[in-house]
Amino acid sequence: MLGIGFIHFHYSPQIRQIHAMNILIVHAHPEPTSLTRSLVDESVGALQAQGHAVALSDLYAMRWKAVFDAHDFPARKNHERLCFITESGHAYSTSQQTADVESEQRKLLAADAVILQFPLWWFGMPAILKGWVDRVFAYGLAYGYRGEGNRYRYGAGGLQGKRALLSVSVGGPAEDYGMRGINGPLDQLLFPITHGMLFFAGMDVLPTHAIYGSGRVTAARVAAEKSAWRQRLAGLFDEAPIPFRRQNDGDYPDGHVLADHVAAGLSGLVAHIERVPRP
Amino acid sequence: MLGIGFIHFHYSPQIRQIHAMNILIVHAHPEPTSLTRSLVDESVGALQAQGHAVALSDLYAMRWKAVFDAHDFPARKNHERLCFITESGHAYSTSQQTADVESEQRKLLAADAVILQFPLWWFGMPAILKGWVDRVFAYGLAYGYRGEGNRYRYGAGGLQGKRALLSVSVGGPAEDYGMRGINGPLDQLLFPITHGMLFFAGMDVLPTHAIYGSGRVTAARVAAEKSAWRQRLAGLFDEAPIPFRRQNDGDYPDGHVLADHVAAGLSGLVAHIERVPRP
Repeated sequence: MLGIGFIHFHYSPQIRQIHAMNILIVHAHPEPTSLTRSLVDESVGALQAQGHAVALSDLYAMRWKAVFDAHDFPARKNHERLCFITESGHAYSTSQQTADVESEQRKLLAADAVILQFPLWWFGMPAILKGWVDRVFAYGLAYGYRGEGNRYRYGAGGLQGKRALLSVSVGGPAEDYGMRGINGPLDQLLFPITHGMLFFAGMDVLPTHAIYGSGRVTAARVAAEKSAWRQRLAGLFDEAPIPFRRQNDGDYPDGHVLADHVAAGLSGLVAHIERVPRP
Repeated sequence: MLGIGFIHFHYSPQIRQIHAMNILIVHAHPEPTSLTRSLVDESVGALQAQGHAVALSDLYAMRWKAVFDAHDFPARKNHERLCFITESGHAYSTSQQTADVESEQRKLLAADAVILQFPLWWFGMPAILKGWVDRVFAYGLAYGYRGEGNRYRYGAGGLQGKRALLSVSVGGPAEDYGMRGINGPLDQLLFPITHGMLFFAGMDVLPTHAIYGSGRVTAARVAAEKSAWRQRLAGLFDEAPIPFRRQNDGDYPDGHVLADHVAAGLSGLVAHIERVPRP
């Protein structure tokens, strides 16, 4: 992009279309008039207006099977004992997965960016969305990439090069999710998702977009929130991702634990985020 | 208990039975020979041997409906628009919930302790267990207790006085979950569950019992792990819970944010745990 030079000083929607991308939106709310759904509609409209191609996975409308179980493995490697890792790797590598999982993986692999839009339920994803991750993030793809255990993870792996963004509707007030708010900071509560699922699988994860107090929103506020969300989407491919530390860039010499000199004196979730992003 | 005096110096299994308790075990693994299931069997055996009454919710065997949706509300308050909080409160307060949810709530309310046993999938619960929480933890019971919004939560609420314990089988090695391990510390990854679900609803939550490297366990190790688990269970009603700060004990004067003098200089998840438990 740098090579194109001055065109970018005048960039317009027309020129933007040259960089048309594929975007997958996965969302999890059954009510058409919910805040989550109105933001999903906004995503589709805004991204298509930018010239992007949008794929939607409306999990409730699809009646997505949330429960990961023996039915996910129509051709078992081991008929005696169900080991999820073994069977997931076998089904993925031999193309013997169920059609619904294969279809979602195809969308995921075609996407340049993935946006997950959901209401925060008990500080995490609704079960139907957790079940999307449980079933679609197969061994060989999202973990155990190339069948090599943990060699590729956290910034490397089957989904490397893609961007990811959470858009979350939160019932409680923002103050409850502040640095000293009673629930804990939202970005730390979502760390198992942003870091543990998305970055783990190789994706560049943008800071979460949250809307607080979602239970009581006026029409005026919905309009303002849609506008703010549209602004975020405009920067989907330009915004700096969360600077999570990559497993294979030297910070974890043994692939497991931070080197002593890295984030010295820090521990816990925050130690895995660089304070100054690398160039 | 203190009043009974010297009997406790000699306490024996026979005397222990005087304090027989009700214990609910909720578990989420479909494979009968899995490590999770062998620990569930151990729980049942050990607790019954202590004289306790054990109720089991084997979510896979029950074909538990994981997805929280309109079918959870057979008699809607608002037929136009599905708002989960409104309908959950209405269904719970008017006894118009589905039979499966009511049955689980009855077990929960009868329990003195609740043990959740599950494999860690993507740093959280399998979807089927998340769906148990989404559906069973109703408004008026586990949140919005007595219909009073956030007045009772974090140490107070519908499940106050009960104990809770997570028993988690973890595929990766312990070092990945240490204070500077690449995944983040297990207790911080599980904070949305221990603090955000169980303590939120009023329960006293014990430190999580984790078994690492669960993908490759020898028979000798299974025996050792069963023995360690049996030890934990022996202290189920004696062990000190995680000293999470209670909302209504003064640390959060406005019910939202820590007072300046509390955990001064700390922020994030760790600020919500007292370093020295109160007597």
